[in-house]
Amino acid sequence: MPRKLENFTIVIFGASGDLTARKLMPAIYQLGKLQTLPERYRIVGIGRTKYDHEQYRTLMHEAVTRYAPGLVEDDDHFKVFSQNIFYLPGEYCDLETYKKLQADIEAVENREGFCDNVIYYLAVPPSLAGPIIQNLYKAQISGGSIRCIGWRKIIVEKPYGSDLASAQKLNSIVAECFDEDQIYRIDHYLAKETVQNLLVFRFGNSMFEPLWNHRYVDHVQITSAENFGIRERGLYYEETGLLRDIIQNHGLQLIAYMAMEPPTRLEADAIRDQKIDIFKHIRRMSPEKIAEDVIIGQYDGYRQEKNVSHDSKVETFAAIRFFIDNERWKGVPFYVRAGKNLKEWITEIVVRLKPLPYKLYKHISEHAEVNKIIIQVHPEERISIRFSAKRPGEEVVLDPVLMDFNYKKSFEGEWLTAYHRLLLDALAGDQTLFLRKDGIEECWKIADNIRAGIKKCGLQPLIYPSGSWGPEKSDKLLEKDGFKWRLR
Amino acid sequence: MPRKLENFTIVIFGASGDLTARKLMPAIYQLGKLQTLPERYRIVGIGRTKYDHEQYRTLMHEAVTRYAPGLVEDDDHFKVFSQNIFYLPGEYCDLETYKKLQADIEAVENREGFCDNVIYYLAVPPSLAGPIIQNLYKAQISGGSIRCIGWRKIIVEKPYGSDLASAQKLNSIVAECFDEDQIYRIDHYLAKETVQNLLVFRFGNSMFEPLWNHRYVDHVQITSAENFGIRERGLYYEETGLLRDIIQNHGLQLIAYMAMEPPTRLEADAIRDQKIDIFKHIRRMSPEKIAEDVIIGQYDGYRQEKNVSHDSKVETFAAIRFFIDNERWKGVPFYVRAGKNLKEWITEIVVRLKPLPYKLYKHISEHAEVNKIIIQVHPEERISIRFSAKRPGEEVVLDPVLMDFNYKKSFEGEWLTAYHRLLLDALAGDQTLFLRKDGIEECWKIADNIRAGIKKCGLQPLIYPSGSWGPEKSDKLLEKDGFKWRLR
Repeated sequence: MPRKLENFTIVIFGASGDLTARKLMPAIYQLGKLQTLPERYRIVGIGRTKYDHEQYRTLMHEAVTRYAPGLVEDDDHFKVFSQNIFYLPGEYCDLETYKKLQADIEAVENREGFCDNVIYYLAVPPSLAGPIIQNLYKAQISGGSIRCIGWRKIIVEKPYGSDLASAQKLNSIVAECFDEDQIYRIDHYLAKETVQNLLVFRFGNSMFEPLWNHRYVDHVQITSAENFGIRERGLYYEETGLLRDIIQNHGLQLIAYMAMEPPTRLEADAIRDQKIDIFKHIRRMSPEKIAEDVIIGQYDGYRQEKNVSHDSKVETFAAIRFFIDNERWKGVPFYVRAGKNLKEWITEIVVRLKPLPYKLYKHISEHAEVNKIIIQVHPEERISIRFSAKRPGEEVVLDPVLMDFNYKKSFEGEWLTAYHRLLLDALAGDQTLFLRKDGIEECWKIADNIRAGIKKCGLQPLIYPSGSWGPEKSDKLLEKDGFKWRLR
Repeated sequence: MPRKLENFTIVIFGASGDLTARKLMPAIYQLGKLQTLPERYRIVGIGRTKYDHEQYRTLMHEAVTRYAPGLVEDDDHFKVFSQNIFYLPGEYCDLETYKKLQADIEAVENREGFCDNVIYYLAVPPSLAGPIIQNLYKAQISGGSIRCIGWRKIIVEKPYGSDLASAQKLNSIVAECFDEDQIYRIDHYLAKETVQNLLVFRFGNSMFEPLWNHRYVDHVQITSAENFGIRERGLYYEETGLLRDIIQNHGLQLIAYMAMEPPTRLEADAIRDQKIDIFKHIRRMSPEKIAEDVIIGQYDGYRQEKNVSHDSKVETFAAIRFFIDNERWKGVPFYVRAGKNLKEWITEIVVRLKPLPYKLYKHISEHAEVNKIIIQVHPEERISIRFSAKRPGEEVVLDPVLMDFNYKKSFEGEWLTAYHRLLLDALAGDQTLFLRKDGIEECWKIADNIRAGIKKCGLQPLIYPSGSWGPEKSDKLLEKDGFKWRLR
């Protein structure tokens, strides 16, 4: 049963940008088609380019047709939908833009819900988030404004700051203008079904949790690999690098889901409390010995990309060994590897169990003892158990076999993407899949610790060929502990 | 790699019987086709019917063609094979038969291995086992005879005795004529790949054994159901009944494989020691309270079967609750159910885990907590895990899903049947899949205890309709403990 949503206006900052065209507008259109949206809603796009409403509607028609092939089955249907779309050109740093926005919203007739419930979506570069929020406040249309009836919410895209200091600063700006329960910090990874399923897998079943600790798990490995480069995003990437783009958010979030204690309730804050508890228990690395735990790499050819410095030291790959110093995970390494231009486009988590204490089948088969739980998040959403079975026949030979569960095959019907899900959750007021202020800051502490170590030791990114699994040294990170990446 | 076998003679008592025609001869022929047998071997059939060699060969040709469709691809090939078959008519209780057998074997020319290595196969009713063994001894062709060069072995089919006293008597007769390591007591169930795989599943993997105890398992249920009646076996069944035909052997063996401690070595005696340890720890039932743990049934129509008494009290169904009083299994019921003319032909073992200690998803889904490991032995050989996953979509709804491993699909190629395997093992001298003297006797103690209780309480079999899952009271046996049969 879909939730009953209230009428609303969504204001998109960055309306003429890439994210709006590729993800946001197709998601809103599809939700409309699925009749998941309330009776009345209004989309107001704000951008610097000068369009009128009709031009912008046509642009969005083209965008949805292009980026969500097959979604627009009927152009007339889209045209009816697009009567809900409005466009307001303006500078993000100019208070006038916000006054016009306010006037625009208030001018709507039969405006029940339209103006009363407003959600702002920041689909803009991170540096613009602060100014936009402050202007919303000055124009008296932000969170606690006395001029508001209904609700106000704000959705902020990652990256949320670029280190602890900048995230804290942004948090304090936002906190002046919105309450924490009005703020939706997006990490679209968290809205993938498989990631959500990690909680169900662990806490909705009684057979996995007994194994989920240092007594039975010998290590966890997380791979988040892309088989393409930075594309056109040289400017962004040169400023950010992989540690901040992927590890600080996705990487740490996946660790948290795998490692967290069961929440007391299935509610946003109870779940986020437990995740943040893991971040606090992640062992800080000694800056002098950073090379024991961290490998960084850069793909061959990165320096020739557009808008990239020809002697850039920015990393496009990282492999990191984390430890979580709590009772459950003492001594269990969590290896996280992520990178651009690697061999496959895949995100997977592997939980490897400890070898058997006895060697009953050891002389017969080397593979006998390797039990693994493999959770693939992308491209397929599946959970597999790799265990040993006896090869049929006279001799006792053990072969590794897979027991497999595939979400798509098991659940038929239309799946919503992460963006659909996040929009619906924000509209319904469920913050579970969004990041909380203290969570963001704890993650930045971890990322800053690593980056400080890299700086202190002068660690250089190792060049790796495109299509490989990154620098060879990344294999050594596991080998010295007696392990191997599953994908090599 | 198949084992290298020595040349041998197999002497089949009951050569004109059903088992020989249906199972034994097809198995030997197929092993020959697969070139698993040694260079030279000889099959000597003994039976009461008077055939000459050629008549018997023709009979076997027909039998293999009939009972193993497709196996005989080339009649000439079978004829070449059948030159290894010989027939000796005679009475089993007449010493002359054995003297002729001895003379026959010794008369073979170029007899290296033929006479030297002899394996006797008792495919005869249990009452004949004693006399045959004693005559082999008197004819000086049994186990320890000084006239023997090479080895002597004997394969005894179940049922092995009809209670503890008769089994002990048979054991002592056999022990006079053969050493324990020459005796191969067959339970063909034990040679099924899935049953053998139970050991690998449990002790060749590190992820299941931590769960395999009273802390995580709430009960185990074993169903061994047939969807057909006693067929032509009225005489046998009236004497035996289901408790002795199925529970005493298959039922208890399956319990042992599920419950046993890991053996110290992968050797016959180490494995059998641990199985027998389980039999010894199975709690004896109070004869006065047998009805708390035992339900017996008889299918409607049994009394009209051929050679069945019209007021027969013989059971064709039983459901029994066992407890194993050791540290691992304290308080965990093992329910065993078996019967004729039930709804399906299936053998499966279900290990159900305890519910979660917390009820995180309880309000959302009733199925959230039921995790099961399902091991199907027949008709498919597979292992499945039933667990909960989140149904895709906005709401957190848990659905039970299956993670499945199917042996046939995972391992291609020609599979050997239980009889192939047992013959090869006996020829190679591996007793792992055969029953040991003390194991048989311990199982009879358990069966006798139950039968004594039934007698003392005057427990009557409940009539159940063919095609059902037995008497309704069998459901109550679990329901009073809060459980249900998976198949109902």
